[in-house]
This record gives sequence, structure tokens and C-alpha cells, in this order.
Amino acid sequence: MIRTLIRTANPRYLQINQNVKRFRSTQAGKVLTVDTMHPLIKNAEYAVRGALPIRAEAISQQLKKDPSSMKFDRVVFCNIGNPQQLNQKPISFFRQVASLCDNPELLKAENRSIVSKLYPADAIARAELLIKHVGSVGAYSHSKGIPHIRENVAKFIEERDGYPADPDNIFLTQGASEGVQRVIQMLTQNANSGIMIPIPQYPLYSATLSMVNAAPVPYYLNESKGWGLDIESLQKSVDEARAKGVDVRALAIINPGNPTGQCLTEENIRDIIRFCHRERIVLLADEVYQTNIYQPETRPFHSFKKVLMSMGSEFADQELFSFHSTSKGMIGECGRRGGYFECVNIDPEIMEQLYKLASISLCPNVQGQIMVDVMTNPPVEGDESYPQYISEKQEIFESLRRRAVKLAKCFNGLENVSCNDAEGAMYLFPQIRLPAKAIEAAKSSKMAPDAFYAMALLEATGVCVVPGSGFGQEPGTYHFRSTFLPEEHLFDDFCGKISNFHKEFMDKYRA
Amino acid sequence: MIRTLIRTANPRYLQINQNVKRFRSTQAGKVLTVDTMHPLIKNAEYAVRGALPIRAEAISQQLKKDPSSMKFDRVVFCNIGNPQQLNQKPISFFRQVASLCDNPELLKAENRSIVSKLYPADAIARAELLIKHVGSVGAYSHSKGIPHIRENVAKFIEERDGYPADPDNIFLTQGASEGVQRVIQMLTQNANSGIMIPIPQYPLYSATLSMVNAAPVPYYLNESKGWGLDIESLQKSVDEARAKGVDVRALAIINPGNPTGQCLTEENIRDIIRFCHRERIVLLADEVYQTNIYQPETRPFHSFKKVLMSMGSEFADQELFSFHSTSKGMIGECGRRGGYFECVNIDPEIMEQLYKLASISLCPNVQGQIMVDVMTNPPVEGDESYPQYISEKQEIFESLRRRAVKLAKCFNGLENVSCNDAEGAMYLFPQIRLPAKAIEAAKSSKMAPDAFYAMALLEATGVCVVPGSGFGQEPGTYHFRSTFLPEEHLFDDFCGKISNFHKEFMDKYRA
Repeated sequence: MIRTLIRTANPRYLQINQNVKRFRSTQAGKVLTVDTMHPLIKNAEYAVRGALPIRAEAISQQLKKDPSSMKFDRVVFCNIGNPQQLNQKPISFFRQVASLCDNPELLKAENRSIVSKLYPADAIARAELLIKHVGSVGAYSHSKGIPHIRENVAKFIEERDGYPADPDNIFLTQGASEGVQRVIQMLTQNANSGIMIPIPQYPLYSATLSMVNAAPVPYYLNESKGWGLDIESLQKSVDEARAKGVDVRALAIINPGNPTGQCLTEENIRDIIRFCHRERIVLLADEVYQTNIYQPETRPFHSFKKVLMSMGSEFADQELFSFHSTSKGMIGECGRRGGYFECVNIDPEIMEQLYKLASISLCPNVQGQIMVDVMTNPPVEGDESYPQYISEKQEIFESLRRRAVKLAKCFNGLENVSCNDAEGAMYLFPQIRLPAKAIEAAKSSKMAPDAFYAMALLEATGVCVVPGSGFGQEPGTYHFRSTFLPEEHLFDDFCGKISNFHKEFMDKYRA
Repeated sequence: MIRTLIRTANPRYLQINQNVKRFRSTQAGKVLTVDTMHPLIKNAEYAVRGALPIRAEAISQQLKKDPSSMKFDRVVFCNIGNPQQLNQKPISFFRQVASLCDNPELLKAENRSIVSKLYPADAIARAELLIKHVGSVGAYSHSKGIPHIRENVAKFIEERDGYPADPDNIFLTQGASEGVQRVIQMLTQNANSGIMIPIPQYPLYSATLSMVNAAPVPYYLNESKGWGLDIESLQKSVDEARAKGVDVRALAIINPGNPTGQCLTEENIRDIIRFCHRERIVLLADEVYQTNIYQPETRPFHSFKKVLMSMGSEFADQELFSFHSTSKGMIGECGRRGGYFECVNIDPEIMEQLYKLASISLCPNVQGQIMVDVMTNPPVEGDESYPQYISEKQEIFESLRRRAVKLAKCFNGLENVSCNDAEGAMYLFPQIRLPAKAIEAAKSSKMAPDAFYAMALLEATGVCVVPGSGFGQEPGTYHFRSTFLPEEHLFDDFCGKISNFHKEFMDKYRA
């Protein structure tokens, strides 16, 4: 304290002191460096937007400046489930409602005659209803999301499952990612807290666990059984982790699977719930692909909530979080960052803590919330927009299904490649048995073998996929994840490029 | 492993095992409880949406069901800077552009003649330009934000400051809060990492530090000098913290102040920069209220970036993050969750880490990004929308300034209350010297004295403010924060309610 006074009071001391410190400062360089930053953030990895996509972006910029600088004229971003980036048309009704809510001047009586030439009556009515409940889309909403929209989400869940849902148990979020991050953060206590994650997994899970310094407890999906999930594998995983002293608390499950595209049977879900209940494990059901179902007769979607509710009072205390998003399905409104999660059997005090956590970030963006409203409460039979809504949705669905089949066929036609069909989601995850010489070449380039293959594919064709090492895979196996989102009229060309590249690659590295 | 096989293979063992575990499970209750959750999240506090606003919300719901159940007919939410919640009209041009981007059908040639009756030409042109660069508002964008919009932000900063800005140094975010949280997370390494925060402060800072388990290093603003900031106070604070072994790394400064409304002079900012440079401290400049300036002649806004750049090469390595938002100013588009931060002199490897961190959350919502575009690039002289834009902005500004003066006058007219004028921002932070009997009564109710006062105000009038204890204050002093956002035609009534309540409160607890 006295020293402080001397230092601030005596200008000469100050000057000298400043000179000394300035020297030290120059010597020392930046305050914030990779050596001084938070180590957990430094360690986090996120392959979907990692080295491959960064290179893809650079190539894309380069092509804008010099279109003839590569052997191809554009980059095809298959690294991310981003349908509208690849020109998937948005659902008209959804955009009409959003547009009207943005500009409530359009809802004024004096504009009605003009506006009704541009907008169907049900879109206008929906926007009016939303504005009545929302107030202004420019105001912070309730931190859990607008109550009226949470009521609609609850009704949607009730209709989907046939069991009650409570709007108070629903939190609207900025995409599903924010919900997953919050719940995982809440669920971990220290580096000893374990969360079970599938291998392969969507890297949001591993990145989030890395950042909260909790222990990932991996369980393997069975590629030879269509990426099926068996309870023995879960049991083995939890037993081994607990034997090492890990406090296993939750199981993350992605259904339909990402990157693997499998869709769980009701029986399988029931077994998983029994397992979690027996082992005192909270269920995290990532169900963002619940409407991307391509074999609805043989592999329909069953929500974990519905199956849990059907299992009776014995399981009535099983804790479950279920996540959903406006980014997937036939909607593909990724840029909106709309989503929600439902809390089932969660302790009331934890509900309050989740509310507090949501409040620190104020609220999810209101346009994303509106997208959740229309997703869970779309036009119904008799509404003016219903025929168009159904036909737009159906067209996207049929096309996605055709492209899923076509791409799997393409992959399965490649030498040393095998690929399960997509029962759901937006991805295929083929396995490549890489020649020894390719693995050697990857080593020399200091790259994982699958990353080496994916980089070669990108440089040769402009097709950007994500190497399997970004998702996790059985040691010694190599995969990559590709969306099947390129536009249908370009799809044969897309498949052709991959086939040609693969043949050349294999020829080059053949033993 | 063998044990696992036995357990899963033998149904009888399984059944017994399940019964035992189920008993244990029932005994143990929930897996996720406040005792098992992440302790850092449990400890975080966020008063802006704490006990007072939760009670306010409950009263608001109650009034909807039974309008005569309280002595007032509605709750006035002065706890949060949320202008459009209190019916501030949005800027028309901004909403027109947002609305057109949502519904690109409106931009088609065949609709042009109708659409041009509803939208001015410059709004249509802007939407066309944005759609050209954005693609679809329903697609994930670049994780740092749409490049075209970051270019416009850089131009805005260049024009504001007269110094160059690089779009690559700009990250678009979901409101300023997300940026502040990310940068603080990055800046801390362990519980020993210290970040200087003002007292009083906006509780996002204390909550974030609490969640990342870093050390808040408080420095006091001087209430008797209009909430001024003196370097001696900063020096004392850093010296004391370092003497205790805290690794002080950054200084968060809110200018104009929240909750305190002061606006720093250029000379003061220069001193702060010298201090940070000498002490090797990264500057975090929260400048979200940069256009809420009510005494522009005597107290104009100076950005930290501009002042830093004006100080020459000696300070050319000073690290600075500056935060801005679409939620404040005359815009008040809080629900959009638009914002950005600029990185100045930040290590290139840290820039990459920030990019990775942004990528894990995919991208900020695109409608928020569009709001950043129009905020930083509004209509200019000669544009069709310019006159309306200027008049709307001016009207909001004049009204805010009148209300700021009126509310300060109201507070200063109350017994035992003194209040500095708002030079900027949206809040007043009056001090109340509470009678001993009121402090006693608060103790009996197990409440902080200022929370006790604020709760009494809410129950009597429906006016919801935030107690000073939520922001921090000199020990033994009591304050509260109130916005001056209630609508102008209701403002006299609002002030009258507060005055009447205060008189009754003081009479009740007078010694």
C-alpha cells in the first residue's frame, strides 16, 4: 500500500519504473499467447471445421480470384450438414412467417390488400398470433424462450409421442449445440466426471468434454451390424471406466446417428433405457435428425421420451434430456440457430440452475425461436399453405433419399471401400482400406492416413469431406464422413469425380 | 471383462443385480442434483435476471389471470436494457432489410411492382446485395461471420476512428455477451488468473469469471466524481492482487458505464492505456453503449482503439478486444442477438484459437449478422430511407435523453437518495442511505438491504429494478439500477409511483 503510494506519487520513480517495465514487456512479447491461454480450449478439437475445411475455404477464395487455378471450378462442401449452402430451397411458409414478424408494418390494416397478394392468409394469421405473444422480435425474450412457443413445442412432443409434455420443462436454445454444451457443463463436476459418447461421434461432444475437462467414456458402434449399438458394449465401457474410478454420469446417444446414419429400433432403445436406469446414468438423446428417416416402414424414428414413458412406473425416475434443432430435417434452417431441449425427470433445483445459466446469456435469438414455432406447428390440412408445405417437404425428402442411395452405391462401387446405407440423418461414413503405401505417404506428410486421403480428394476434385479420425473410429480402420447434400442435378458429376479420384489414388499407392 | 460377460450372459444374475441396483437407485434419488452438478455453475450469480425479476415475472403472470390482484395493473421491467419490450419502435430500414432477406421471393422480378409499394428502393437494394453475399439466411455462415459483413464492420470502425481496421480481426457474435464470455474464457488459465473488473460492474463479468474459475480483481469507480475512474485505484488494485500472487492479465472496462452511465474522457482513456501497457494487461473494452451519449459536446465517446492508435508506435503492441452489439444505441434490437468484437494486436495463434472456438458453436445467427450489417452501414444522405432513418434515430435519442434527465431529477428529489446524471448508456444507479430500521428489517428477512428495498418497491408499484448488490458497491452503501426506458407518455406516472413508494418506505422505517 505504501509502496503503491510512493510509486504513483513520485513521477521520477514512475518514469524509471515505466522504462524498466516497457523493456520487460517488449522482451516478453504478447500477454495472451498459446502458452498462457486456457489449456482446455487449446486442447479442444473440432474436425467438422478443422484443417480440411480451412484449406477448402482457402481454395474457394482462390477460385473466386482465379477460376482456372485448380482442376475444378468450385469447392463442394460436404463436410457439414448445411443444406441451404448447397441451394436447398427453404420451406416457403416458414420464411413468410419470419418475414412478416420482422416487418410488422406489413400487418397493418392499410397494407392488407397489397400484402395479401404476396402472403397467404395463414402465414399472415400466424405472424399476427406470434407478434401478439412475442411483442417485438427485437426484444429479449424470457430466457427459456417465449412461453407461447414453448407451449407449441410441448404440444408437438405430445402429439409425436402420445405422452404429456410440460412447457416449463422446455428450453429454447441457439441451435441444439448450445443445449448440448449447457447440459454437459451442468453434468460434470470435475475431471473425474465421465460422459459416455459413441465412437464414431459428432465432435461437438468430444470438444465440449475437452473444454469442461471431463472424461469421455467411449463406447463403440458396431459397423458390421449397420452401426448398431449393443448393450454389452455399453456395459463393458461403463464397467471399465468405473473400475478406473471414473464417475460415469451420463450417456450421449445420437439417433439417427451422426456420422453413421443408423436408426435405433424401439427394442434397442428400451434396452438402453434399462441399462441407464440400472447403472444410474442420465440419458442425453441427440434427436436432431428425427425427421431424416429414409426407411420409415422398417426403421421408423422412436423418441427416447416416448419409449421411456411406455415402460411404466418402474422407470419413472429416469433422467433424460432430449435435443432438437431447426437446422436438420427437411427444414435445414441452420443459419437461424433455432433449437430446444426437453428435460424429463430432472431435479427441480437443476431446472432452476439451467434457467440461471440461460439467463446469463439473456435469451436465444427470437428469429430462431420463431423457426422452432413453425417447425413444431406447421400448416395443417385445410390451411391455405398446407398443399405447398407438404409438396416442398416431400420433394426435399424424396430427393435426399435418392441421393443417400446413390452415394452409398457410389462408395460401395469403389475398390477397398464399404459403406452402410443411411437409415437416417444426412451423412454416409464409408470405410476405406488404405494401401500400405498410402499409409506410409501419410506418415511422411505427418497426417492421419484418412486425413491424407481426404486432403488428396479435396485438392483433386474440390470435394470437402471430414476424415474419420475427427469422429473417432476403431483403431486401424479409416473412414470419412460425407453429406449427401450436393444438388441432385450435379450428383452424377459429383459421384463421378469421387470415383475417378479414388481410382487414381489407389493406382498411385497400390502395393 | 470376464465379470462383464458373466453379468450380461446370465439372466438370473442380471435380474438380481438389477433389483439390488434399483434399490440403491431409489434410495439415492436423482443422479444430477445441486450436490453433484458443476460447482462453478452453481456458484455463478446473475442479478439482472435474479430473484427480483423472477418475482416480477410471477406477478406479471398473476396480473394476466387476475388484473385486480395487485395495487397496480402491470409490471414495469426496469431491470434490463430491453427497449423494445417497453415498446420502443424499431428502425424501419433495419426491419425492412431483415424482412426481405427472410423472404427472397419478394426480390423476384415478377413481384417487384407490388413489393416496391411496400419497401423503399434502398432497402430492396441492400437485401439484394446481402443475399448475393450471404447466399441464404438459412445456411450456416463462416464461423467468424459473413466476410462481406465483416468488411462493412471494418469500414465502420475506420470511419469512426480514422485508423485502419482489418475484417480478419473481427468476429461476429450472438450479442456482445457471447464475445465477452469467449474472450474471458480464452484469457484465463487457472484459478490464479485474474481479470480486473469495475465495481459496480455488469454481472456478466462476475458470472463468467465465476464459471471459468478465474479471480475477479475489483477496482472501484468513484461515485463522488461522477463514477470516474482513477489510475491510482487501478494501480492499487493490481498491486494488491499481484502481492497475493494473482496473475493479473486483463482489465475489463465498460464505457459508457453500466450500471453507472459515466463516459470516459480521452485523457482518462490514454492514462488507462498507459497503465495497461506498463503493467502488461490486455484491455477488454465493452463499448456497447457507444452511441448512447447524452452530453456529446462535453462528454463525447472515444473508442479505446482510436485513442490507442493515436498514441503512436510506443504502444503499438498493446492488446485490446473491443465489444459492440445491436442491442443498445438507438437500435435496441436485443432479440436479434447481433454483435461483434474487434481484436487489436492479438497474437496470430490466438486468432486461430478464437476461430476454432467460434467453429465449435458453428456460427452466430445470420439474422443477427444482418442487423450488424445495417447498424454499421446505415442509409446515407441521398438514400431514399435516409430522412426517415435520421428522424427515427433522433426521436429515440431525444426522448432517451429527456427521460434520463427526468429520472435523475426524480431520484435526487427523494429523501436520502443521490444520483449522478447519465452521461451515457441506459441506466441510473442512485445511492440510497437506508434507515437503520430498514436494514434491521432486511436482516430479519434474510435479504440484502438494497434487495429488501427493491422487493418492497416491486410489491408496491410493479416497478422492477436490480439491487446494487448484484453489481457490487462500496461496502456499507446501497444502490439500485433502473433503466430509463419506460415509455415517455407513462414516465410521469412512473416517477410518481417511485416517489410515493419511497416516501412511505422511509416513513415506515424512519428511526
